[in-house]
Amino acid sequence: MKLATLTTETESLVVGVVSDESGDRFVSLAAGDSSLPKSLREVLSLADWQSRCERALFEARQQGAYVAGRLAAPIPDPAKVICIGLNYRDHAYEAGMEIPSEPVCFGKFGNTIIGPDEPIRLPRVASQVDFEAELVIIMGRRAYEVPRDEAFQYVAGYCNGHDVSARDWQIGKPGKQWLLGKTPDTFAPIGPWLVTSDEIANPHALSIQLSLNGEIMQQGNTSEFIFGVDELIAYLSQIMTLEPGDVIFTGTPPGVGMGRKPPVWLQPGDVVEIEISGLGKLTNPVQSA
Amino acid sequence: MKLATLTTETESLVVGVVSDESGDRFVSLAAGDSSLPKSLREVLSLADWQSRCERALFEARQQGAYVAGRLAAPIPDPAKVICIGLNYRDHAYEAGMEIPSEPVCFGKFGNTIIGPDEPIRLPRVASQVDFEAELVIIMGRRAYEVPRDEAFQYVAGYCNGHDVSARDWQIGKPGKQWLLGKTPDTFAPIGPWLVTSDEIANPHALSIQLSLNGEIMQQGNTSEFIFGVDELIAYLSQIMTLEPGDVIFTGTPPGVGMGRKPPVWLQPGDVVEIEISGLGKLTNPVQSA
Repeated sequence: MKLATLTTETESLVVGVVSDESGDRFVSLAAGDSSLPKSLREVLSLADWQSRCERALFEARQQGAYVAGRLAAPIPDPAKVICIGLNYRDHAYEAGMEIPSEPVCFGKFGNTIIGPDEPIRLPRVASQVDFEAELVIIMGRRAYEVPRDEAFQYVAGYCNGHDVSARDWQIGKPGKQWLLGKTPDTFAPIGPWLVTSDEIANPHALSIQLSLNGEIMQQGNTSEFIFGVDELIAYLSQIMTLEPGDVIFTGTPPGVGMGRKPPVWLQPGDVVEIEISGLGKLTNPVQSA
Repeated sequence: MKLATLTTETESLVVGVVSDESGDRFVSLAAGDSSLPKSLREVLSLADWQSRCERALFEARQQGAYVAGRLAAPIPDPAKVICIGLNYRDHAYEAGMEIPSEPVCFGKFGNTIIGPDEPIRLPRVASQVDFEAELVIIMGRRAYEVPRDEAFQYVAGYCNGHDVSARDWQIGKPGKQWLLGKTPDTFAPIGPWLVTSDEIANPHALSIQLSLNGEIMQQGNTSEFIFGVDELIAYLSQIMTLEPGDVIFTGTPPGVGMGRKPPVWLQPGDVVEIEISGLGKLTNPVQSA
């Protein structure tokens, strides 16, 4: 099942995505089950969200309740945006960092979240803004101290994610904390939709690719993960309660702009496309602040 | 004006605090103005929140609309919990760090926020949990690229804050990011209430004190700030849009447990009290997970 957030001129809707030869169409889940909450984050807080969404999607489709609008981020308002650094062996080498013995964890705030086709805005004060394609985990159940062998049960699904990073604010500042380089407004595009776990046979065997203005810059596979999805959830949930709708960026494969000679930084007018197998394509233009 | 969030058996209320010889009492702002939103964060999103709250508080008091309940965090659900490290000269020396040339910024997630008298829970996996008394800024207007000389206009007010810190997760982990040491559940007590800016003549001349089980451990004054409230807001708002209800922890004075010989770590049964001049007292017990 593919779930998305659609904005029309008057409202924001939780929709199911129906893909066939005529393209991608959207049906309103509320048309199939009017008691469902209006936000996907709240939908995922229901214990039986998966079966209810499946039923609602089926009903809405039967009714032909197709709706038109603009895709927003599938979760426009996550309570947490957790990020993992250096989680692909090759990217750690590229960045000149050691292979970490434990996940490297940092955060973004919710101001970073944007959806497909929304512009990434370059802050006036940043001049080294880099791209990072990432697999994003979306949580589907509250999780605290979850053992690794149960961790997949807490995942709602996955989507493409872009961990946009201002290197001049991430690296070399006093205290060496990455937050400010990672949390400028619009620096976490996600989407175009949430693909539920049951449709992803193995999240550790997904090809991942980023292209900049049509040229492939990053290419990798989640089989290169240092820490897998289950390991990350077990690790993080020792420290904090993960909530439905929380998003976890799982790190980026090699090829980022910083590692190139000369380095490549995002410029106004650029277009970035990210594509992970089975998760559709996430496209965002770049503009000045 | 002192504004707080009060929970009764059935609901959560925005209240004004009335302090006189008989102690602190609470009046429901909704009794004075039923059109006010139900959360203090939403109240602060109104352009005229200050005058409306003042009027509602006056009306509610006239009516004798006193309510009883339990104080929660004044903002139980901030969109951002931004923290500044090493912002008192003496604490930077104590921690063996250089005086930073720019603010050191890191974050916590909203799962950390608790109110007065709520227990700080020690994660099973952390054994070096430390205390840090801090002045907390609560934002009262949306702020982006705010010049320093206008920054105070964006502040709603201040409260006591406790930046609880698991040193074994903050320091010495791969990547050296502080997030996991700072963001365990319950690690950001704030309160007991928001004191609006108009009652704080100079936020850079406030005494700040923390006691552990009745013994004074930290004592300082915000006159020791390296970066002032206005400077922090100008600096942060270059990178991210600050929203009403966002909280900013401004760093801690000397005396933390890590800097002592032998070091002092929080233990189940401990009681921590923080008191900043004019902001009341924030008390939290400590318990195991």
